[in-house]
Amino acid sequence: MARDSAIKTREEDYSAWYLDVIAHGDLLDEAPVRGCKVLKPHGFAIWEAIVRDLDARFKETGHVNAYFPLFIPMSFLSKEAEHVEGFAKECAVVTHHRLRSVTTEDGKQAVEPDPASKLEEPLIVRPTSETIIWHMYGRWIDSWRDLPVLINQWANVVRWEMKTRPFLRTAEFLWQEGHTAHATEDEALAEARQMLDVYASFAEQTLAVPVLKGTKSARERFAGAVDTYTIEAMMQNGWALQAGTSHFLGQNFAKAFDVTFQDADGKRDYVWATSWGVSTRLIGAVIMTHSDDDGLVLPPAVAPIQVVIIPVFKNKDKEVVMDAVNKLFAELKPHFRVKVDDRDNMRPGAKYFEWEQKGVPLRLEIGPRDVKKGQAFSKKRTGGGKFGIPFEGIEGHVREVLDGMQSDMLQVARDRQAAATYTFDSGSMDDFASLISSQPGFYRVPWGGDDDDEGRIKELTKATVRCFPFDEDSAEGLTCPLTGKPAAQWAVFARAY
Amino acid sequence: MARDSAIKTREEDYSAWYLDVIAHGDLLDEAPVRGCKVLKPHGFAIWEAIVRDLDARFKETGHVNAYFPLFIPMSFLSKEAEHVEGFAKECAVVTHHRLRSVTTEDGKQAVEPDPASKLEEPLIVRPTSETIIWHMYGRWIDSWRDLPVLINQWANVVRWEMKTRPFLRTAEFLWQEGHTAHATEDEALAEARQMLDVYASFAEQTLAVPVLKGTKSARERFAGAVDTYTIEAMMQNGWALQAGTSHFLGQNFAKAFDVTFQDADGKRDYVWATSWGVSTRLIGAVIMTHSDDDGLVLPPAVAPIQVVIIPVFKNKDKEVVMDAVNKLFAELKPHFRVKVDDRDNMRPGAKYFEWEQKGVPLRLEIGPRDVKKGQAFSKKRTGGGKFGIPFEGIEGHVREVLDGMQSDMLQVARDRQAAATYTFDSGSMDDFASLISSQPGFYRVPWGGDDDDEGRIKELTKATVRCFPFDEDSAEGLTCPLTGKPAAQWAVFARAY
Repeated sequence: MARDSAIKTREEDYSAWYLDVIAHGDLLDEAPVRGCKVLKPHGFAIWEAIVRDLDARFKETGHVNAYFPLFIPMSFLSKEAEHVEGFAKECAVVTHHRLRSVTTEDGKQAVEPDPASKLEEPLIVRPTSETIIWHMYGRWIDSWRDLPVLINQWANVVRWEMKTRPFLRTAEFLWQEGHTAHATEDEALAEARQMLDVYASFAEQTLAVPVLKGTKSARERFAGAVDTYTIEAMMQNGWALQAGTSHFLGQNFAKAFDVTFQDADGKRDYVWATSWGVSTRLIGAVIMTHSDDDGLVLPPAVAPIQVVIIPVFKNKDKEVVMDAVNKLFAELKPHFRVKVDDRDNMRPGAKYFEWEQKGVPLRLEIGPRDVKKGQAFSKKRTGGGKFGIPFEGIEGHVREVLDGMQSDMLQVARDRQAAATYTFDSGSMDDFASLISSQPGFYRVPWGGDDDDEGRIKELTKATVRCFPFDEDSAEGLTCPLTGKPAAQWAVFARAY
Repeated sequence: MARDSAIKTREEDYSAWYLDVIAHGDLLDEAPVRGCKVLKPHGFAIWEAIVRDLDARFKETGHVNAYFPLFIPMSFLSKEAEHVEGFAKECAVVTHHRLRSVTTEDGKQAVEPDPASKLEEPLIVRPTSETIIWHMYGRWIDSWRDLPVLINQWANVVRWEMKTRPFLRTAEFLWQEGHTAHATEDEALAEARQMLDVYASFAEQTLAVPVLKGTKSARERFAGAVDTYTIEAMMQNGWALQAGTSHFLGQNFAKAFDVTFQDADGKRDYVWATSWGVSTRLIGAVIMTHSDDDGLVLPPAVAPIQVVIIPVFKNKDKEVVMDAVNKLFAELKPHFRVKVDDRDNMRPGAKYFEWEQKGVPLRLEIGPRDVKKGQAFSKKRTGGGKFGIPFEGIEGHVREVLDGMQSDMLQVARDRQAAATYTFDSGSMDDFASLISSQPGFYRVPWGGDDDDEGRIKELTKATVRCFPFDEDSAEGLTCPLTGKPAAQWAVFARAY
């Protein structure tokens, strides 16, 4: 089949391709509110799969869910100095709690905020919940026996972004935010690292998205954190996408909200904290890691529909084909997310096309000849020719195909990331700028700069320090090519979303 | 064990009892935002069980989930006249999108809404999503082939209530809202009735809360609906709690947002609609239906912890007891939500007490003698003496006990509801007022009144029409005792939350 000319190729225009894949995959639509999007059923179902899987991983590691208010009193934000600095410029502010009727100039009925309902203290729609949660922890924590507190929240948050991009950056988005409280610094550090590992395993095993783990530079750190750990994924254009972060907050929020505990010896100290989050942005990472010029490609583990069965028949064969289709469906249904597309107002080719654009991993075509042969004529979304899958033992065969696709997709993405990871340890800033622009990727650099150097490099090259990777060799004795200073550690630079 | 004097009895003070049960059950805490509460892990886990179960029922009936924006442009509310009337007086209004720093009179740093960030059109935090969803449906629906649309959303909503009560009425709450679009009136009516049936089955099977199904009077109808169907539950004090509603919206929202479709014959018509929702209020219904003077009682189907195992030993027996406990836990874990309470700084009695207050349905005590006998010394939260459960085949035994509790709890609640359901077909308004106050319950009344009559009765008796029950005998030929008018149908009156 000819490719859908409605989807731009990656080569032609990578940004337009991304938007086209989303539109043709029926994942999301524009909302009538600036910066907000509607997650359509096929897009939201990817998030549901992510939530299900991650939630189980959080619970396995001893966390429980809770729910804190959407609104944060404005004064709370100011209590942690860096935090307010980071979020004040992009938050939705509630100032009234009632509307009143008015007649407009052209005589129509309308409403406006009722001045008599103005709030004494404005409320902020949460951009993140550290402040309100640490206020509550102050009520809940008094003794070492109350620790650790290991709470996660699934929620919507709002950050008034001026420049938005579907899934990657929107004014409102869905996420989870873990907030934990500990008696010791070591325990909090271990928790922050553990949750980064949970994210990394999830990204690789479930999303088939390989990630680089490391520490953020001071400049890119979460507002209020002592250290931010990150997982960075590489998109097909060589750009980085920050896919999840885990923060060691030290005692910053405990001090801001005066949360202390009495240890076993009767001594009081401030509580140690972490927070960690991933969001619907992960859907963007999945799309940009796996999709192709024909549209959406999804790893089986998060595909809303894993298998689509398409009956193909002339009327005289309808009964024999539909019998086989219904039997297959009944066998697969308990084990997979499977759909039968039996719409009678559409030709098979148009159906193939639609489900390909929606990223369904495996298609089974069933015609009268297939029924006779006792096998489904099958096609993987990731390519290759059509092949037969025997009806006999179909569950096992399908599982094998899907498992194979899942691990192949991870391997392809890993190979791509490895191939586009470079070391830049000598050369000028101009060399670096031209390299990272003509050949985008992850650039390992022996790094000796500071905040200002990072800012300057970003201006000249549009690249930022994505992280100081864990488990790197020492950079001792090397010179940072970008600053001329002695290198303190390896940094990975990239253009980023 | 003596009862915890910290929990007021139902007899003493029913309202205080409800708050005490919640506090001692560790379900919820006050938030620093007026009208908002924090759902603590043990309370939120009840909601998680509700979501899991209901979501599966929605999907079985062909619905999919999606996510629409939190914010609704203010002008949208005005498009449906009754809708704005119903919600304008209690909504949170966002007017700014940035804060700026200020120095307060006492020289401190603070923030305030930045006047330069004032929005051209204020945004409303959704009190319900009909308006924004029907705006989107206008983009998505054009032909009969696009119908039906069967979408559900799990979300937080805000209604600025002045008088709040935990779970029952709070400014922000969690809920689901189904919004469906249909080609015909009949189909929409059938959908609205189907979803009420889904709610009723769920309430009875999962929450063990029997409900009365019926139609709301015009006065109690959803703002913008043609008809509202309701399930009404009876609390232990004889008051009613509206536990879920399903609305037939006719073409009201389609007309307000100009959503039409072309039918198979090429004719255009407005789309027919339903919406339906239940919320965290259901947790209140569960608490008030089942709990007792010792605290929270939860049906096994939604209990965050269904079985708690408490080892009881002196140090010399620790190994033999813990071996048995760990073995039991491993056997039960795949099938139940089970917890071992092996805290060593607490005596068994204190643990029993804590888990009783948290409503855990089944407690297994394991001491050295129980290990020898090969059985767990067991206690049901709903009462009765302790009894032995053999280790051998423990999964089946525990399932039998929990299933029995689940159906017993429903039966007890059903019997209570039946016993407190009365017929009032003769007598004066004074008689009725005194009856419903001294002997609260559901009162069947042959009803002939109108909106104004309902208002007057509410003022005099504090009772409202909860619904016109489905499947009632005809009221023809009867006279309405409260209005003296000829009865048109049976109505059920009650005091209500």
